[in-house]
This record gives sequence, C-alpha cells and structure tokens, in this order.
Amino acid sequence: MPYAHDAVRAVVWREDALELLDQRLLPTVERYRRLTSAAEVAQAIRDMVVRGAPAIGIAAAYGVVLAARARYAVDAAGWRMTVGSDLATLAAARPTAVNLFWALRRMERAIACSSGDPTAGLLAEARVIHEEDLAANRRMGQLGAALLGERGAVLTHCNTGSLATGGYGTALGVIREGYAAGLVERVYADETRPWLQGSRLTAWELVRDGIPVTLLADGAAAALMREGRVRWAIVGADRIAANGDVANKIGTYHLAVAARYHGVRFMVVSGAAIPIEQRAPEELLTLAGQSVAAAGAEAWNPSFDVTPAALVDALVTERGVVRTPDAAKMMQMMVEAV
Amino acid sequence: MPYAHDAVRAVVWREDALELLDQRLLPTVERYRRLTSAAEVAQAIRDMVVRGAPAIGIAAAYGVVLAARARYAVDAAGWRMTVGSDLATLAAARPTAVNLFWALRRMERAIACSSGDPTAGLLAEARVIHEEDLAANRRMGQLGAALLGERGAVLTHCNTGSLATGGYGTALGVIREGYAAGLVERVYADETRPWLQGSRLTAWELVRDGIPVTLLADGAAAALMREGRVRWAIVGADRIAANGDVANKIGTYHLAVAARYHGVRFMVVSGAAIPIEQRAPEELLTLAGQSVAAAGAEAWNPSFDVTPAALVDALVTERGVVRTPDAAKMMQMMVEAV
Repeated sequence: MPYAHDAVRAVVWREDALELLDQRLLPTVERYRRLTSAAEVAQAIRDMVVRGAPAIGIAAAYGVVLAARARYAVDAAGWRMTVGSDLATLAAARPTAVNLFWALRRMERAIACSSGDPTAGLLAEARVIHEEDLAANRRMGQLGAALLGERGAVLTHCNTGSLATGGYGTALGVIREGYAAGLVERVYADETRPWLQGSRLTAWELVRDGIPVTLLADGAAAALMREGRVRWAIVGADRIAANGDVANKIGTYHLAVAARYHGVRFMVVSGAAIPIEQRAPEELLTLAGQSVAAAGAEAWNPSFDVTPAALVDALVTERGVVRTPDAAKMMQMMVEAV
Repeated sequence: MPYAHDAVRAVVWREDALELLDQRLLPTVERYRRLTSAAEVAQAIRDMVVRGAPAIGIAAAYGVVLAARARYAVDAAGWRMTVGSDLATLAAARPTAVNLFWALRRMERAIACSSGDPTAGLLAEARVIHEEDLAANRRMGQLGAALLGERGAVLTHCNTGSLATGGYGTALGVIREGYAAGLVERVYADETRPWLQGSRLTAWELVRDGIPVTLLADGAAAALMREGRVRWAIVGADRIAANGDVANKIGTYHLAVAARYHGVRFMVVSGAAIPIEQRAPEELLTLAGQSVAAAGAEAWNPSFDVTPAALVDALVTERGVVRTPDAAKMMQMMVEAV
C-alpha cells in the first residue's frame, strides 16, 4: 500500500467516545471534538463538523453506540424502547445523506439481535461499517484508476477524500490510487463555492499526501479544459438514481456539461433516489461572517445538483464499473451484485 | 428616461479633483476617495479602487488633467516633455484594460492641440470621453433590450454596470433598459469568484435601482439553466477580437458553454484583441485576508477567459448588433462604422 491511509481519519472511536475532526476549522486548525452522546453527534452532523455522506453514516453508527450505552445504563430492560428516539434524532440531522439512513438501519438490526449490555456488540457493528467503507473505497480506487489510461492531470470538485469517508476517499481514492500508479501527475481542485470544500479540505488532504494540487475558481474549469490541461474530471456522488443520474455537490453538473463539450472524460465514484436540499442563503450573502452582498439581494443556493447519466462516461462503485450508465446497465449491475 | 442614471457614479470630477467611489468597500461602505495627482490615480487603478475597463479609461483621462495641471504649474514652457512620464505611469496601471490606452491616446492628442494653460481644455476632453461612454451605454442598452423578446429572467456575470462604466452599464445597461421595458423580470447574478463582483457590486447596483436580483454560486449556473429559469445570459467584454472572440472575466466561457448546451441565448455587450492577465494566487488561497487553503497548495487564477465567437448569439456594440459573429461580420461592422 503506497499510502499511510490512516494518517488522516475524520471519524475516530477513541477511549469510549466518538472523536470528530472539526472540518469547519481546517486547514488552519486541526482539532478533534469529543462526543459522548447521540444528541452531540446529531448536532455535529447538523453543524457540519463532519461532512461527506459516508463519513456522516459512520459517525451516526458510532452515535448509536453512545445512545444505546446511555439508555441501557438507565434502563437495562426497556432501553430498546427509548433508543428509538435517538435514532430518529440522528436520522433527522442531515436528511439528504442516504448513507446516514443505511447505517442507522444496520445499527437497528444489530440492536434487535443484541442481548445484555449492547455496547460491545454495537461498537463491533459500527467498526464493521467503518472498515467496509474503507475497503469499498480501496476497491473503487483500484477500479477507477484502471480507467485512467495514460498519465495526465485530473480535475475534481468538492471533497471526497479521507475527510468525507471512512478514511481513503471515493473520487479522491481513485486519484490517490492513480497518483501511486504514476497515472495522475497533478490534481486541479475546484474551490467549490459556497462552502469551499476544495480550498479548505481537498487541498489540505492532498498537500498532506504530497500530491501536487492546484486550486481554481469553479467558473474557471471550462477555460482549464479548453487549454487541454486535464483528461478526466473525477467526482463523488451523494446519490445515484436507478437510471444512472447522479446527485452531487452544486457545480458538478456544470462541470459535466463542460467536460462533455471539451471531450474531457467524466467519472463518478460512489456507492449510493433525489430531493434537492436548499441550504441557507446566508452562505452566498455573507463570507467569513461578513455581509458581501447588498441588503435586499436574494440568493439561489441549492446544495446539490443532478447530472444526467448521459453526461457520465464511467460510474465506479464498489460493485464494479458501469460505462455510459443507463437504467438497463444500472439494473444489470444491481442484479449481478445480488 | 426611466432611471436616475446619475444616482450612482463611480468616477466623478468634483471641485478640481477626481473622486472615485472605493469599490473595495462596497456594499458595506460608500466612500469616495479624492485624488489630486496622476500617481494617485494610477495607484487607485492598480489597487482596484476603480474597476471595469470603461471606468478605468475615464478615470485615467481625468488623471491626465491632474498631471498636466501640475506639470504646467511647474514649467509652463516645457510641461509637454514631462507629462509623458505621467501618461506612461497611468498606462502601466492595468495593462489589460484596452479602454485605458484608448483614453490616453485621446488625451495625448488633446495635449498636442493645447496652448497656454491646458487644464480647462483637457478637462473638457475628459468630460467628452465620459459623456460619450454614457451615450454609448444607452445606445447599447436599447439595441440589446430590443433583442430580448418575451419577458423572462436573465443571468449575468461580474459587474458591468454604473460602477464599471461612465455611469449606466454595458450588459447591465441592456438589463436596465430591458427591465424598464418590462422584458426582464429578474436578474440572476453569478457571485463571480474570486473577486465577488456579482455579490458585492452587481447586487448592490440592482438593489439600488429596485430591480429584483438573485445571487448564485458560479458553478450553479448550469443547474439554473437546466431548470429553465433564464432565457438569456448577458455579459460584458474587456476585449473583442477581430473574429468575434470575446475576452471577459474568468467564468464567462464556462457560462457560454452551459448556455449553448441548454439553448439559453448568450449576449455580449461591449465596445472593444488578447493576452490573458494572471492575477495573484492569493485571491484563491485566502479569503477576507485569512488563509482558506493548506500551505503548499497552488492556484490557477487567470483573470480573464476567452469565449469563442461560435458560442455568442448576439454581440452588441455602440455601432450595432452582430448576430452569431465571425470575422467577416466583424469586418463588415467595422467598415460600416467608418
């Protein structure tokens, strides 16, 4: 393994509590927040201390461990009745993160199978969820890197790395694997407005790994492609629809349109149906807490956009690669995976 | 005239000096800086106190008045020899602003024709340059608005309004005219990274004029088009090449590609051939003076991009409208204008 994959972990179970690397403070400050209750975990998800659908799911799984331990301590007979409200609190923390519901369903099953003190058993299940995510990332990294072809630069959007996942990355996992194989010479990273995940998080991760990274304004990506500087655009996905349409961070669709126009190939790397979250207009109207727009101006601030399958050249999941995805191919992949 | 066109003027000659609305402080603070020398004007252009190619040209013209007055006071016989260095200082302040050179050439001619104290004559010439810009803006506004067709929303990028020109606007002049005619119901404004001219300036101007404005992240523009929310994208241009290619603020090309893909019409409004300025990487690596990216990350931060003529549906200049511009049509327009 060419990388110290454990160098950065955003979600860590340490000394009987969940510790989350506070991503709001990066890249300036690296500080872990120690959480000892499901309510704290839900709040941390809402506040974006942790972000990225896989990382949110894993954090929520550990949150269930905290919830069950506390409920069992109070009422060893009736805790399964009361812990349901904690799961509901966790589920409501970020309604668009499909991994969150998936992780909570697995933890619910583990609760149903537990007997006596559930803490150790639930912790083991949360760790399995975490390890499976890492393993899926590694597999997607290998599958995606095998598509890259000759050496060149790649473009990515948002953060899909160690910080967003169990510890390796989806799109960034492919890029890590491709860099290790000598196929990726440089990563161009969209700064990713309005939350600047590219500037704050992706650049930080890649600098830590010693992978050359160049930031650009999101609107500059088409000009970069026109100069012939990148061969692939590689992004993650929050959700993938049954027809291969991809919901991901706002700006992804713009990138896919520009990639198609310029003959740059477009790869989506993920594991995951679609209502679009609107985030607070303040994210566009203010910057670093200060108003940047005149009072009276409105803002259109969708958090995600949908990229139609027709613009996707390769969809990489842990189940395999689907080239030019459509409903039939997506169905085929699901069937083969059973 | 439906608008108090004089309500906002970024460049004003007042009490024997040049006053510039400090655009770096908008929209929070409206403060004019009083400049009494060509060196101060050059510094203000470099520091982006004033921005927008037409406004820079007008400010430089008034800067020549200040220079000539001072040189004449020191040496009434030999001032034409010494004032040349002031013109050179002004010309070097923003090498990509073609209007700057054009305005300085006109002021050079006026210097050559002057006799005795040149102040009044040069001031008159600077005012003519200013008024001509306003008149050209109005004419482009009418020509562009006549293309809009049925009522709908429009999308714009950067700031091309009163703040960027003599006092009305190029793309924003078309939008003002279109709003007055009931053809523009709302303006979607790209925030325009990295300098946020859309959030800080365009939104401020439009709110002042009572025109509904909605900000969006630059990368969200394609998703907006996909929803069918806009019928036209209307932008300015810093330079137009002989074949109709358009150099404008970074992000314009991305918008043109997305517009073509979605069947949204793309209008360029300007009066002005193309080396691309690279601005400081700090504009992407820091935000509000604070570092937002990890040390070690690089930045690709071109100030302008070039949109090929093939993506332009209508080019509006003060000489008239060129639909789907190419070299032959551009030549035709230039010939007819002679």
